[in-house]
Amino acid sequence: MLHGPNLNLLGTREPEVYGRDTLADVDRELKALGKELGVAVECKQSNHEGELIDWIHAARGRCAALVINPGGLTHTSVALRDAIAGVALPCVEVHLSNIHAREELRHRSVTAAVCTGAVLGFGKHSYLLGLRAAVSRIAPT
Amino acid sequence: MLHGPNLNLLGTREPEVYGRDTLADVDRELKALGKELGVAVECKQSNHEGELIDWIHAARGRCAALVINPGGLTHTSVALRDAIAGVALPCVEVHLSNIHAREELRHRSVTAAVCTGAVLGFGKHSYLLGLRAAVSRIAPT
Amino acid sequence: MLHGPNLNLLGTREPEVYGRDTLADVDRELKALGKELGVAVECKQSNHEGELIDWIHAARGRCAALVINPGGLTHTSVALRDAIAGVALPCVEVHLSNIHAREELRHRSVTAAVCTGAVLGFGKHSYLLGLRAAVSRIAPT
Amino acid sequence: MLHGPNLNLLGTREPEVYGRDTLADVDRELKALGKELGVAVECKQSNHEGELIDWIHAARGRCAALVINPGGLTHTSVALRDAIAGVALPCVEVHLSNIHAREELRHRSVTAAVCTGAVLGFGKHSYLLGLRAAVSRIAPT
Amino acid sequence: MLHGPNLNLLGTREPEVYGRDTLADVDRELKALGKELGVAVECKQSNHEGELIDWIHAARGRCAALVINPGGLTHTSVALRDAIAGVALPCVEVHLSNIHAREELRHRSVTAAVCTGAVLGFGKHSYLLGLRAAVSRIAPT
Amino acid sequence: MLHGPNLNLLGTREPEVYGRDTLADVDRELKALGKELGVAVECKQSNHEGELIDWIHAARGRCAALVINPGGLTHTSVALRDAIAGVALPCVEVHLSNIHAREELRHRSVTAAVCTGAVLGFGKHSYLLGLRAAVSRIAPT
Amino acid sequence: MLHGPNLNLLGTREPEVYGRDTLADVDRELKALGKELGVAVECKQSNHEGELIDWIHAARGRCAALVINPGGLTHTSVALRDAIAGVALPCVEVHLSNIHAREELRHRSVTAAVCTGAVLGFGKHSYLLGLRAAVSRIAPT
Amino acid sequence: MLHGPNLNLLGTREPEVYGRDTLADVDRELKALGKELGVAVECKQSNHEGELIDWIHAARGRCAALVINPGGLTHTSVALRDAIAGVALPCVEVHLSNIHAREELRHRSVTAAVCTGAVLGFGKHSYLLGLRAAVSRIAPT
Amino acid sequence: MLHGPNLNLLGTREPEVYGRDTLADVDRELKALGKELGVAVECKQSNHEGELIDWIHAARGRCAALVINPGGLTHTSVALRDAIAGVALPCVEVHLSNIHAREELRHRSVTAAVCTGAVLGFGKHSYLLGLRAAVSRIAPT
Amino acid sequence: MLHGPNLNLLGTREPEVYGRDTLADVDRELKALGKELGVAVECKQSNHEGELIDWIHAARGRCAALVINPGGLTHTSVALRDAIAGVALPCVEVHLSNIHAREELRHRSVTAAVCTGAVLGFGKHSYLLGLRAAVSRIAPT
Amino acid sequence: MLHGPNLNLLGTREPEVYGRDTLADVDRELKALGKELGVAVECKQSNHEGELIDWIHAARGRCAALVINPGGLTHTSVALRDAIAGVALPCVEVHLSNIHAREELRHRSVTAAVCTGAVLGFGKHSYLLGLRAAVSRIAPT
Amino acid sequence: MLHGPNLNLLGTREPEVYGRDTLADVDRELKALGKELGVAVECKQSNHEGELIDWIHAARGRCAALVINPGGLTHTSVALRDAIAGVALPCVEVHLSNIHAREELRHRSVTAAVCTGAVLGFGKHSYLLGLRAAVSRIAPT
Repeated sequence: MLHGPNLNLLGTREPEVYGRDTLADVDRELKALGKELGVAVECKQSNHEGELIDWIHAARGRCAALVINPGGLTHTSVALRDAIAGVALPCVEVHLSNIHAREELRHRSVTAAVCTGAVLGFGKHSYLLGLRAAVSRIAPT
Repeated sequence: MLHGPNLNLLGTREPEVYGRDTLADVDRELKALGKELGVAVECKQSNHEGELIDWIHAARGRCAALVINPGGLTHTSVALRDAIAGVALPCVEVHLSNIHAREELRHRSVTAAVCTGAVLGFGKHSYLLGLRAAVSRIAPT
Repeated sequence: MLHGPNLNLLGTREPEVYGRDTLADVDRELKALGKELGVAVECKQSNHEGELIDWIHAARGRCAALVINPGGLTHTSVALRDAIAGVALPCVEVHLSNIHAREELRHRSVTAAVCTGAVLGFGKHSYLLGLRAAVSRIAPT
Repeated sequence: MLHGPNLNLLGTREPEVYGRDTLADVDRELKALGKELGVAVECKQSNHEGELIDWIHAARGRCAALVINPGGLTHTSVALRDAIAGVALPCVEVHLSNIHAREELRHRSVTAAVCTGAVLGFGKHSYLLGLRAAVSRIAPT
Repeated sequence: MLHGPNLNLLGTREPEVYGRDTLADVDRELKALGKELGVAVECKQSNHEGELIDWIHAARGRCAALVINPGGLTHTSVALRDAIAGVALPCVEVHLSNIHAREELRHRSVTAAVCTGAVLGFGKHSYLLGLRAAVSRIAPT
Repeated sequence: MLHGPNLNLLGTREPEVYGRDTLADVDRELKALGKELGVAVECKQSNHEGELIDWIHAARGRCAALVINPGGLTHTSVALRDAIAGVALPCVEVHLSNIHAREELRHRSVTAAVCTGAVLGFGKHSYLLGLRAAVSRIAPT
Repeated sequence: MLHGPNLNLLGTREPEVYGRDTLADVDRELKALGKELGVAVECKQSNHEGELIDWIHAARGRCAALVINPGGLTHTSVALRDAIAGVALPCVEVHLSNIHAREELRHRSVTAAVCTGAVLGFGKHSYLLGLRAAVSRIAPT
Repeated sequence: MLHGPNLNLLGTREPEVYGRDTLADVDRELKALGKELGVAVECKQSNHEGELIDWIHAARGRCAALVINPGGLTHTSVALRDAIAGVALPCVEVHLSNIHAREELRHRSVTAAVCTGAVLGFGKHSYLLGLRAAVSRIAPT
Repeated sequence: MLHGPNLNLLGTREPEVYGRDTLADVDRELKALGKELGVAVECKQSNHEGELIDWIHAARGRCAALVINPGGLTHTSVALRDAIAGVALPCVEVHLSNIHAREELRHRSVTAAVCTGAVLGFGKHSYLLGLRAAVSRIAPT
Repeated sequence: MLHGPNLNLLGTREPEVYGRDTLADVDRELKALGKELGVAVECKQSNHEGELIDWIHAARGRCAALVINPGGLTHTSVALRDAIAGVALPCVEVHLSNIHAREELRHRSVTAAVCTGAVLGFGKHSYLLGLRAAVSRIAPT
Repeated sequence: MLHGPNLNLLGTREPEVYGRDTLADVDRELKALGKELGVAVECKQSNHEGELIDWIHAARGRCAALVINPGGLTHTSVALRDAIAGVALPCVEVHLSNIHAREELRHRSVTAAVCTGAVLGFGKHSYLLGLRAAVSRIAPT
Repeated sequence: MLHGPNLNLLGTREPEVYGRDTLADVDRELKALGKELGVAVECKQSNHEGELIDWIHAARGRCAALVINPGGLTHTSVALRDAIAGVALPCVEVHLSNIHAREELRHRSVTAAVCTGAVLGFGKHSYLLGLRAAVSRIAPT
């Protein structure tokens, strides 16, 4: 579970867009849901594109799937896209807000094309549903 | 739960893109999950834009939320977009495939901007997660 | 007088955009104005592009002019455009709202180029003025 | 009632596009209709963008509404747009011809977005209908 | 043999563009040619996108190939494109007129990319050649 | 019958796209079909735009119609377009492959707008159907 | 002979682009050439779009042809374009500099499409040649 | 100090965008700051593009620098751009509002490229800072 | 004096666009004018881009200036542009018709940016004026 | 006061574009001006987008306003834009050079829309004016 | 080793862009390097697109790889692209100058996508490195 | 020799695109070639844009030239472009794959315009040829 730039502000930054739960609240709920679904959930946040890429690389061999909210990098980072494609793990892109209902520059996702799929617009539920989606890819019925 | 054009072919049409479950299979799983989540799920499919609009209108007052896979209309139908905006219900857009990983003309969603959010790329799991998303909107924690 | 998709919601859908009169109210005022201007007014609404096209075809030989609010089809339907061009009747395009003051995707009209002219932005008065415009085309001074 | 650039040529310039009535003819009909509707109509024409802006400013406090045919400035003048927005009066944009059926560069209106609405394509009737539209805004039923 | 929106007007609508033969005339010639080539030809027309999709689905298992003139839907309908791709039959797109010699909005075909090929610009001969093309695909030399 | 650049490679170049018949095979079938239809068929190939233009000019007065596969020049050559328009003969554009199903740069035809029509996507049958189309233009029923 | 905005600076403004002759020098040479060609030449300059339009209107009935350098208005003014089209006189557009060799925004001419033709890039010779071009239109050989 | 179209409305036009100080208030503060900085400040406003160009020309030889708020002409006027480039004085473009945070059509400045620099978004402070910027260009440290 | 593709058809090809004089007529008038202006004029025509490039190269050292009508290559040929730039002679681009008043694809000139200037829209007079323009560049007053 | 990528090269990198003062020089002048204006100024530089975001976050609660020169990130970084919007402090964007007078890719600012305003083109004075602008936002008159 | 249009001017044409070595000099160095690398190098130049295509075809069976500088055809010729793709040999595209640092119209390469790779910007060294690249493809380590 | 984001995955990430050699293998070959050419080669890799910029700055005065594979940053990073331009060293851009034969978003290089040149598409040979190119710039013959 990787949180991209500015998600450390969660709960305080533009709460009418992103909700009032903090990142710690979200991570706690994710771990609880992970336990319920029988998977261990690891959560990290960085404002550094390079660090996110390092972590994605490090996930190879250690993790069964990725859930990532690339924040503003969603719309710009080919390097992040290459990292996701490079490790060839199931990857779920999640967004708190509905990016299609916001500014034009948020309508395009550079990273989504190399992910398995995406969940967006449901606040913290985007994360919880994203975790379920990832689990469904690890052990599809 | 509204299925748009060509989803009646599910399980037979381009199975490498859309999976092998039929629409009846998906609907059965959706109703089972609805029961588990304590909501009644109604499922309909049409290849007619006008019929989908009629059904969306009819949902006002009768349903608490919509889950819709608009199929090819996703990328073109302003009329469908207006219907969703007009009834002002929580609405979840779902797609079996990852539309961002397909042809250019599938990258843009006309309808997503007026939906609450979207789930895409997880085959039949997109529907199941979409139902969970809708339920979270009806009774958010 | 043809009303396109979602206009049956008139008076209830986004009233801050479209006003509070229902479609029945508007039709009643139109018929009253028609009587005043000495023309019979027939009003129909459909959410189906195909049905609108059928009605436009049926107007040939029966009606002297068309007034149409194509709703969301305004911005997308080449088939509707072809129907209007095909019957070669005077045709007035009307819109309740000022489409130029709304989302980018509403700025372009596919159908206007084959109409005689357009009236937009005056709520129900768009219809009444549209009827006057049509009458001026039938019997221009 | 403001007539923009080249409308002084009316009746002589490209009559197959703009009709054979002169501007004086149109103004006479407008004043007659104004009398019928119980409003005083003042008509001015200028080929100078700056003069049109001056007149729009002068209308504040003196006029209840504006009807304007900005001519070729329709497609280019942000300054005129700002003037209309700045005086905050109901404003109706009118065009003799159907701008959507002409050259590509006439399809976009810079000014329409800050007007109340528009009437276009009905020759001199565009003006008469535009006056009715303005009156409906001053004293809506 | 599927005829899309407005083709029922054939012979009466804009004859300088589309010719003077009626749809019934064309269908008669098609059946005659089918007999000559040893194939049975079935002809249907609809102004409803949804009905055309239904008929394309119904052709699976019953027909060996499709010939379709999607009319105005050619340039807009992703749903129709998906239907053609979904049934995986040889499909020939035909147009009476040369769409490249007409308005800009007719230059792009949404459906052609999923068809086997296209024949356009030869009036009723487009249909006859389209039938020959389809037959060549069923039993290529 | 003019074959543009690279068509001399036919049968050897990318056979999965263009088929295995050589240009000589195609020309032989074209002449046989011409005999059947009562017309003499002349076939030429060049990789030089200028030579194709010279030949088109030379066809004036000598040929009743042109069938041309401009190859890669289809998408770029205004000079070829001017040559076709300049001789004012019925002209049929043919393509072996379905250009709409290939790279973006092949979707636009510069030459098609000045041809009578086009046949594309049916391999060597595109040529045979193109010849029939040309004959139908010379002596339409 | 109409000179548009900023041409009064000629000879002093950016001489490396526009040359060192003043507007008075150019006008003197134009009148001399006019005398040689047997036509009277009248020269005016304004920085006001509206004044240029007034002068173009005034030329109707008084002048046999127009030569105009619209300066920066070349690239933006639909109103000026309408004035030129409205008076229906032969009109030659001239430019001192080669507009195609300068900034992107100078590559498009809004006015050229309604002029008879254009001469550009030859400094003051553009004017002299433009005058000859106009004369050739008045009394073509 | 040149104020472009509609700035005479300052303090009354859309005060939530442009603030409540009138143009006279701003000019008074500018002159006071000029005195403090040891320069004489002259202020003029016009709604006429041509008049602004005349004034810019007149500044050559009389003024050491220009500060200009071109208003709506910012986004459209190549003639104004040419005037600024033509007089070759240091020129500062100022805007009351942050044009990048407003409508798309205000994001592009035609004039900025030929100015020394720009100050925007600080209400009347844009003018005061613009004056300081101009002074820094006259006598850079 | 170089004539590009299709100009050999002059006088017979689309005479309503290009006039009725043949290329031989034009060349005769050009030589007569050359004699009058004291320069020798050499005229060549080719439909081959490569041949035109060869001739431009050959002009270095032999000719004082070029006048070229690149025909359809105007809008597409970077190779021709490079040839003109490479020989560094004064070069005048001429067109019989007003390319700005024709199809969109003729509005852009690839070659004009590396020429000294252009003359267009005056039929054969474009050539004669182009010759004068070239002479003015060889011996500017 | 945040300096983005490559600003550490100031005074040595392309001095004809960015001037000869080093970053230390600029920071010294900024602190002096801050003292004069009664505010404490803190200056930092980083080539790392992530570090700039971290610092912006850290400014919440500690600083009253931000002045930022995002360097090349201006034109690309949505993550930086989100950070500025997220901390909701007055923020002034500054640029040493006039970005509108440079390459096309520098004309668009991704970050400016969420800043209070911008100052650009005045070399080190952009910073000094930016500081004044920020102070005017903290304690507006 | 194929040299496209205008490369025969090498050493004399725009030497500040292309260097001072002549094509003969470059060919001599290439043959020397070929000898060193154990391959025979054949060099040809043409200004004719068609001739270059003929030579590419002729290389099949005779050459192990191609090195080509398509000159201005790089940016426009689909026919050349098809020739390279058609012969299916390793092909290296080379450019003397850095096309990305020149005019916009040189940024796009039509041919590069079907080549193995490209070397650009190093003057005559582009050719020498291109030859090495080709050799590495024939006998990769 | 700088390797950008994700190049540490070399040999394991998408080997069908990037080959099977690891980065260590490539660096070893580069150093061997450096020794052969008489230059010392230093190799570094980072997934952090900021770190790459720091290293480029650090190369000033220490290195004679740069060879860089910016990975995904190639297509997006103006900051990296500024760093390369800022240090004013010869710089060679290299890519393992042919970026023109991949997704649309890889066709544009932001950085190439400020490099000396580029080598792309030859796998590890791109690096080796890039080193040769850099050496040719240090000591050109």
